[in-house]
Amino acid sequence: MSLSAEIICVGTELLLGEIQNSNAQFLAQQLAQLGIPHFYQTVVGDNPERLKNVLAIACKRAQLLVLTGGLGPTPDDLTTETLADFFDAPLIEQPGILADITRKFAHRGLTVTSNNRKQALVPQGAQILPNSIGSAPGIIWQPRTGLTILTFPGVPSEMQLMWRQTAVPYLQSQGWGQEVIYSRVLRFWGISESALAEKVAPLLDLQSPTVAPYASHGEARLRVTVRSSSEVEALQLIKPVEQQIRQLTGLDCYGIDDDTLASVVGKQLQAAGETLSVAESCTGGGLGQMITSIAGSSSYFKGGVIAYDDAVKRSLLGVTAEGLAAQGAVSATVAKQMATGVCSLLGTTWGLSITGVAGPGGGTPAKPVGLVYLGLARQDGEAESCEYHFGALRGRDWIQRLSACTALDQLRRQLASRLTKTNESAG
Amino acid sequence: MSLSAEIICVGTELLLGEIQNSNAQFLAQQLAQLGIPHFYQTVVGDNPERLKNVLAIACKRAQLLVLTGGLGPTPDDLTTETLADFFDAPLIEQPGILADITRKFAHRGLTVTSNNRKQALVPQGAQILPNSIGSAPGIIWQPRTGLTILTFPGVPSEMQLMWRQTAVPYLQSQGWGQEVIYSRVLRFWGISESALAEKVAPLLDLQSPTVAPYASHGEARLRVTVRSSSEVEALQLIKPVEQQIRQLTGLDCYGIDDDTLASVVGKQLQAAGETLSVAESCTGGGLGQMITSIAGSSSYFKGGVIAYDDAVKRSLLGVTAEGLAAQGAVSATVAKQMATGVCSLLGTTWGLSITGVAGPGGGTPAKPVGLVYLGLARQDGEAESCEYHFGALRGRDWIQRLSACTALDQLRRQLASRLTKTNESAG
Repeated sequence: MSLSAEIICVGTELLLGEIQNSNAQFLAQQLAQLGIPHFYQTVVGDNPERLKNVLAIACKRAQLLVLTGGLGPTPDDLTTETLADFFDAPLIEQPGILADITRKFAHRGLTVTSNNRKQALVPQGAQILPNSIGSAPGIIWQPRTGLTILTFPGVPSEMQLMWRQTAVPYLQSQGWGQEVIYSRVLRFWGISESALAEKVAPLLDLQSPTVAPYASHGEARLRVTVRSSSEVEALQLIKPVEQQIRQLTGLDCYGIDDDTLASVVGKQLQAAGETLSVAESCTGGGLGQMITSIAGSSSYFKGGVIAYDDAVKRSLLGVTAEGLAAQGAVSATVAKQMATGVCSLLGTTWGLSITGVAGPGGGTPAKPVGLVYLGLARQDGEAESCEYHFGALRGRDWIQRLSACTALDQLRRQLASRLTKTNESAG
Repeated sequence: MSLSAEIICVGTELLLGEIQNSNAQFLAQQLAQLGIPHFYQTVVGDNPERLKNVLAIACKRAQLLVLTGGLGPTPDDLTTETLADFFDAPLIEQPGILADITRKFAHRGLTVTSNNRKQALVPQGAQILPNSIGSAPGIIWQPRTGLTILTFPGVPSEMQLMWRQTAVPYLQSQGWGQEVIYSRVLRFWGISESALAEKVAPLLDLQSPTVAPYASHGEARLRVTVRSSSEVEALQLIKPVEQQIRQLTGLDCYGIDDDTLASVVGKQLQAAGETLSVAESCTGGGLGQMITSIAGSSSYFKGGVIAYDDAVKRSLLGVTAEGLAAQGAVSATVAKQMATGVCSLLGTTWGLSITGVAGPGGGTPAKPVGLVYLGLARQDGEAESCEYHFGALRGRDWIQRLSACTALDQLRRQLASRLTKTNESAG
């Protein structure tokens, strides 16, 4: 049995569902990358007795406990005290911590409050895990042989920076991460999880690497996982399986790992030296936001028009009054006019448009909530549009997100198939 | 000791950090609203032995186990089988489930695969928890007296619908939710968690309701929580504490519970019968997306211009070549011109603009990553702008999000203080 870690997130706000537990996801990714297996994650409230209960269970299952939350300045922040109590160690005040907090607060024109004093207490024998941007430091502590505890504040940006700056080098110096668990995720758009599983069925029985399908946020994914002593070797083991999957799935596979539809389209446009603009109605800027979430998108994305109101569709995008009157704003005609309009207004190679009924109101029997038209125009004036029915059940956010992703996918397939054709005629 | 629930999320993808565990947050909120306490959440992989280990612990702590994940059609989906095995019950095929899957697939032009057959198996004695949009149903099962198990697929939209349509009525019919744990969250923008805690310090010692501060996504929050036999009574107990907090914090408090800056600004604009447009550079549509995430936003939001490229700032928004040359695109001058430009282009009461350096590239010593100018213009031509330093450390998404939120907050404070002044002069 190899050594393993366990993630424990402390916070009543998690039990009340007030915040997303993004820390667990971040730590899970990081542990996987380091090749440190972890088999359990636990969430518990700001309650010393229950936290002790969780510690007692986790100590028996794992050799590395990573805790987040409960390090703040307020009275309900009890993680450090509870750890000290559980392992029967006294709390010692570290004047350096308070000096650091005072300095940081002064920089922002704030004064230290009495609340912050408790953040200077650490269990005897523990090292400080410094927090360079926030007030709460964490600890690195071996309360007994064979057990290491790391604590982090609950604020994700602080926790992530502390993890990268201090925890990772520390863990590596202690010999954690001798074997890599490496996963490659292949991402698909426009195919269901079960259809995808069917297409790659023979691969699902592989023992190493393993191939597992799942679905998330409207897309299907395949996770190819292998254990190996090095990342290079892991990649070599994964590569032939990935190639088989790509052969079986063709254009449905849009990317791997951290790729997004926006990053893939960005790379395609960059490679072709082409530019893009958007005209958005029911997504209200969500497509532009997706595109500009990619660093460096200014080299191919020029901007666009949020034409939420029909008057804006007419005045800025040249959508015709006739088109609006005859077909309505949610129609193939208007989608094409919007795409053509923004393409020529901003002088880009491509124009993408979205018009639809995001709901929950505004649906009619002929144009129900979830009906969306996506338009794609080229500089030469050619334009196409597609009709989608995303359904009303999953709500407004879902329809908006699916619309923006599918618009990007439409352009991606257009760009990719053109490339395939070019290669074929060249070959 | 009152009855309690426990949330168990099954999925190796969660342990690998590939997806956010949004199901845990949703279920946590729902349990809290129903007044069903839950003290622990556990995540475990698609591994029968470890899932049994988790079940053994959870059975001792709780009387209601809510499981998500592992109900899919693929071989690694093992939740139902493992539950049957743990509680020593045979699996029975339910022909109705397969018929339902077949009908749904036919509707979408798909055929049932052999993978789907396993989804028709349920433990003897369990009822089906129907899934009206996806293929995998869940179960409602009392494997022994005093223990209820509910299972849901991992796909959030399916799980949520099944929870609302079937699980909630079932739980209420079984007498769960006799006492309400009611929380009100007060939301703040433009004040740090510790400064907020200091302002409301005397309230943090209250026993009922309790008041707890925390920070999330750039905003500070106060959670006011009370246990009570009815929601009406809970609200009565919370009300005076909420009023005290509001008096102590003034305009820093922007809303409660599900309020967002976008929803609050929307209500203000609607009440005033005014309209809004946006001009976005570094946020690329993110501000418009936030505004249009609110259903009904078309009554006050007309649209905007995504002026990612400087040429668009000039041609559509009337930003002057002199302004761009002398001050640069990231400047107070350009922010004001963008806001004024979009306000007059779309003919709205207000125009909001954002221009900044979202990074990670593009920063200079004079204009570092994280420097953002927000502009606000009125129909009469009056315009103001504010400079913000969001810092480079937390990354592009963070800067974009903070920029959009702070722009909304700028307009919110403007609209709220105008209202206060009007009331004062009327009073």
